[in-house]
Amino acid sequence: MLVVKKFGGTSVADKDRIMNVARRCIRDYQAGNDVIVVLSAMGKQTDVLIDMAKEINPNPGRRELDMLLTTGEQTSVALMAMAMDVLGVPAVSLNAYQVAMHTTSAYGNARLKRIDTERIRHELDSRKIVIVTGFQGVNKYDDYTTLGRGGSDTTAVALAAALHADKCEIYTDVDGVYTADPRIVKKARKMKEITYDEMLDLATLGAGVLHNRSVELAKKYGVQLVVRSSLNEEEGTVVKEDVKVERMLVSGVAADKNVTRISVVGLQDKPGMAFRMFDALAKANINVDMILQSIGRDNTKDISFTIPRDMTDDALKALEDKKDALGAQDIKCKTTVAKVSIVGAGMMSNPGVAAKMFECLYNSNININMISTSEIRVTVLIDEADVEKAMNAVHESFGLED
Amino acid sequence: MLVVKKFGGTSVADKDRIMNVARRCIRDYQAGNDVIVVLSAMGKQTDVLIDMAKEINPNPGRRELDMLLTTGEQTSVALMAMAMDVLGVPAVSLNAYQVAMHTTSAYGNARLKRIDTERIRHELDSRKIVIVTGFQGVNKYDDYTTLGRGGSDTTAVALAAALHADKCEIYTDVDGVYTADPRIVKKARKMKEITYDEMLDLATLGAGVLHNRSVELAKKYGVQLVVRSSLNEEEGTVVKEDVKVERMLVSGVAADKNVTRISVVGLQDKPGMAFRMFDALAKANINVDMILQSIGRDNTKDISFTIPRDMTDDALKALEDKKDALGAQDIKCKTTVAKVSIVGAGMMSNPGVAAKMFECLYNSNININMISTSEIRVTVLIDEADVEKAMNAVHESFGLED
Repeated sequence: MLVVKKFGGTSVADKDRIMNVARRCIRDYQAGNDVIVVLSAMGKQTDVLIDMAKEINPNPGRRELDMLLTTGEQTSVALMAMAMDVLGVPAVSLNAYQVAMHTTSAYGNARLKRIDTERIRHELDSRKIVIVTGFQGVNKYDDYTTLGRGGSDTTAVALAAALHADKCEIYTDVDGVYTADPRIVKKARKMKEITYDEMLDLATLGAGVLHNRSVELAKKYGVQLVVRSSLNEEEGTVVKEDVKVERMLVSGVAADKNVTRISVVGLQDKPGMAFRMFDALAKANINVDMILQSIGRDNTKDISFTIPRDMTDDALKALEDKKDALGAQDIKCKTTVAKVSIVGAGMMSNPGVAAKMFECLYNSNININMISTSEIRVTVLIDEADVEKAMNAVHESFGLED
Repeated sequence: MLVVKKFGGTSVADKDRIMNVARRCIRDYQAGNDVIVVLSAMGKQTDVLIDMAKEINPNPGRRELDMLLTTGEQTSVALMAMAMDVLGVPAVSLNAYQVAMHTTSAYGNARLKRIDTERIRHELDSRKIVIVTGFQGVNKYDDYTTLGRGGSDTTAVALAAALHADKCEIYTDVDGVYTADPRIVKKARKMKEITYDEMLDLATLGAGVLHNRSVELAKKYGVQLVVRSSLNEEEGTVVKEDVKVERMLVSGVAADKNVTRISVVGLQDKPGMAFRMFDALAKANINVDMILQSIGRDNTKDISFTIPRDMTDDALKALEDKKDALGAQDIKCKTTVAKVSIVGAGMMSNPGVAAKMFECLYNSNININMISTSEIRVTVLIDEADVEKAMNAVHESFGLED
């Protein structure tokens, strides 16, 4: 069996943890498997390097920043190979250039294009554990690139896809995917299985266990993902196409507090107004999420939408610049909102799920600002202060603790 | 003009020094020159990385150690490019793989085979300062290698040779090559010029300004070297083929205390004994330096030789194993010895230089243990305690302070 195992920065933060991870991988190796290990930089090393850079240049170029950051994973893979060697198992570390991980040229946010598997296959054939730098790639100029936040998950899934691995295990500091964040919902339950689509929605909606690009990639190539804890031996959660167990209506509840609602009030009701507004936001690189349009007074319309909270200032600036062109009367902004979502592949064939959620929130006296739905998801925008109450109520109402 | 400038670890140890080096290089750039900068790892970073490795594996494999160590220079070149950028000058950092610096496969002690110059030329043509990692290379397996101690000097000279640079400046913490170590000989004088051969002998004999491999390479390709201080604007010492000034008989005095003398006493006087002995030492990877053979008693012979002091234990072990096979009566070892050498291209055509040195030592009441000479060098082995006295006496006797 060929297994890809990915460990994040906290799992390799110091000598003892590195030895632990080494032992864990060696167990798989000694059971006769081919083992590929993908590592992030040690602990907070990436942040340390960014601080070093900013001390010299407050606004370092992305090309040179990637050149600097890629030293982080190269350090952790080399140390891991030494750890395995001292434990008596042959291992070899490879960075993005050695593998070769070909990416697009976008420094800081590159996308994988193609992975050469020859070197890895050769090393596996000589019965070595292969340790690969996560998060990094090489572009057509032979320059190092990085894949953006959570990029090591993507590296692991891409390797699993390219090498037709039997399993891709993502080790993290939680022991699987839960029906809701256990810090908020005490009765949250770990799921044994979840579909790619459900996981994608949960990832996008703020359940930060896996990076959504890695889930997309796993779905595209049918890579079986397992989310497990690096701290214990729990079985974790399997992410795959078809889930065997009887589908629950709803499989999980997620909340996202990184939200601002902006309302543009009194727009002229003529064609092209919405386009101009969202075009201005797109040009400022702002992702718009939920959108609600309503009829205002005097033949005008109001448009409300949500954006990531850390982009509030940029969005307001972009809109103020266009305010006159849009003929808008007012721009309102509320930062104390949050999204709560339910996700479940079972929803598709079961009408009434959304209604049940709204009823539950009404019974808990929680006001709904905006609603957005997809085939397997219902999202409501509520006051941030109500998030905990809402999640617990919804979690109980759909019987997720059982 | 194309200039290669090499700065060691102390010159880039922190933010302020990095900014200083950046400004210094920018001055050359703004004068219209093409500038290539070769850097070592910051401060003691290489030692820090070795310590990290040894904490995990007391005897780390050389392949993985090189994978780890090469992150050191990659960090310093990326930060330097950011420093130049913040000062408004376009710069690009390149590591051994990006350049490409092809080396032999010997991890930890590789030799440069070939340098691709296309990428560097391209970056220079677009008027960027090119910052290259010293000390490192890539072998035929696409693995990183390192060039051994002082390897960054070699990188700089090799780049200067491959690109036909007009000048290769080695910046260090002394401001040039002296007639003797100024810490020992107070009247030591900085030389304006010195030949490759003299520099080679001085480097080999313990004047640690330049690595001898870099001098060999400079001689082979006729690269004009300049040794300068990174701390001041002094002109430094030029190392080249022909020196214009009237040749002094002797240009410098050097001492080396990393010496042990070993004597193998009462060897059977039959063919092959010396071969067997030095073969045993060669197999133990021990460099033998001065050798003296003398007739012993009863048709036996004695052989004395010097080795680096840190190899004493290894050498004694290798000899003890062969003692019976060699029929040796005794093996003696003295670690409190040192080599003092005079070097000078003028010696070749001037007999009597060695005699003058011996006379001077005799007048100072210093006993000579062994003697070794070449066309431009005389080396004597004396008691370690006499080194300071000997150097000052010889320095004065040859009038080197003028």
